[in-house]
Amino acid sequence: MRPRAEAAPRSVFAEVLPGPGERLGLAEDESHYLARVVRARVGESVTVTDGRGGRAELELSAIGRVCEGRVTRLEHLARTRTLTLACGAPEGDRGDWLIEKAAELGVSVLQPLDTERGRWERAAAREARWARLARAALRQSRACWALELRTPEPFAVWLGRMPAGPLWLADPAGAPAGAAPAAAQGQTTVAVGPASGFSDAERKALQDNGFQFLSLAPSRLRTETAALAAAAWWAAAPGE
Amino acid sequence: MRPRAEAAPRSVFAEVLPGPGERLGLAEDESHYLARVVRARVGESVTVTDGRGGRAELELSAIGRVCEGRVTRLEHLARTRTLTLACGAPEGDRGDWLIEKAAELGVSVLQPLDTERGRWERAAAREARWARLARAALRQSRACWALELRTPEPFAVWLGRMPAGPLWLADPAGAPAGAAPAAAQGQTTVAVGPASGFSDAERKALQDNGFQFLSLAPSRLRTETAALAAAAWWAAAPGE
Repeated sequence: MRPRAEAAPRSVFAEVLPGPGERLGLAEDESHYLARVVRARVGESVTVTDGRGGRAELELSAIGRVCEGRVTRLEHLARTRTLTLACGAPEGDRGDWLIEKAAELGVSVLQPLDTERGRWERAAAREARWARLARAALRQSRACWALELRTPEPFAVWLGRMPAGPLWLADPAGAPAGAAPAAAQGQTTVAVGPASGFSDAERKALQDNGFQFLSLAPSRLRTETAALAAAAWWAAAPGE
Repeated sequence: MRPRAEAAPRSVFAEVLPGPGERLGLAEDESHYLARVVRARVGESVTVTDGRGGRAELELSAIGRVCEGRVTRLEHLARTRTLTLACGAPEGDRGDWLIEKAAELGVSVLQPLDTERGRWERAAAREARWARLARAALRQSRACWALELRTPEPFAVWLGRMPAGPLWLADPAGAPAGAAPAAAQGQTTVAVGPASGFSDAERKALQDNGFQFLSLAPSRLRTETAALAAAAWWAAAPGE
């Protein structure tokens, strides 16, 4: 038995959250999680999020292949800060855990970048797997904002539509991240090079477009490690 | 071909570093890495570290099952700061990447903790694999300090010999890590609970022994993610 101290409300996902008093039937994956993994029981309350800031409390009335319940509360949270990770391709299967960990740490958008020295060749084949990993991480983290995983985009196309807000390039030549606290609100963007790094032309283009260097560690980091360290840096910032 | 901009000196490991002018033959794994993975050539220089702050420059004279060369420079770096991660057991195979990423981010010591709610049952069977992952991460990061991976220890035994220096407990109840910069020198310790968390008694014991809460992210993190976020927080600190 899991001790009572750990029995915080479980969190699952639903595309659409109905209003208080209404019934909600959960999708198969989420039902499986409640019925088989955490063994929820009729009468218990769980949290349901739409991954877009919506959060409902659901009192369970049926446990099984389709778990069902009645919504007892519904709220919509405002989002005050976001992180977009624009990331070159890591080696091999390392994208799997990059996506899982980015979702767990609350990264808002992961934009895979196809660059001179690396392409996200596995992205199409891994789409379903990555969506499952991100969904599981959302349950795990009990957050109300899902990772938005975009399809890979060429570096130049992405750079052509830079958003407002602080722009950072993960690079050992930068100032230590610990001396540059992440913005407490608004949109932050961090670019991370592929396994073989951004090319000189790409680095220059990033600088010309306002990206500042950010050193995440004194040692050289793999792509997915740098992305994770950037996400942790952003997640650790005090809220507004 | 890897572009020239990326051709920073390769880094490999050797137990013992001979003095300048002397010959050094590398072990099989390191030789394989140089000969097969990065395709080093005779006449090139590589960096060799003993993982204890020693760093030699080696001019390669033979490439093969045993790569050999002549030491052209030898230095010993002083270590001004360390991080000990004392970590409860993660779920399943997640220890693998915890160790790889801790090594990449420059964690000094990983002390697995056997706690009320979780034991490192796979540690004995994974020992050789974890040593290989940590060694590969040392090469990758081009650092001169290897991760010291200790054998699992019961929580109470470990707590009985607390070191000096800041003591942190990764816990969502703490102040945001971004508002509490990691110490720029000396020994820092961060404790991370197992997958099901520290028990109330363990949390109390940590507090009674001077551990302060540190919130690494607003969301709930898995064990290995919290450990990684703590390592990134420490690695991002400005040096002294």
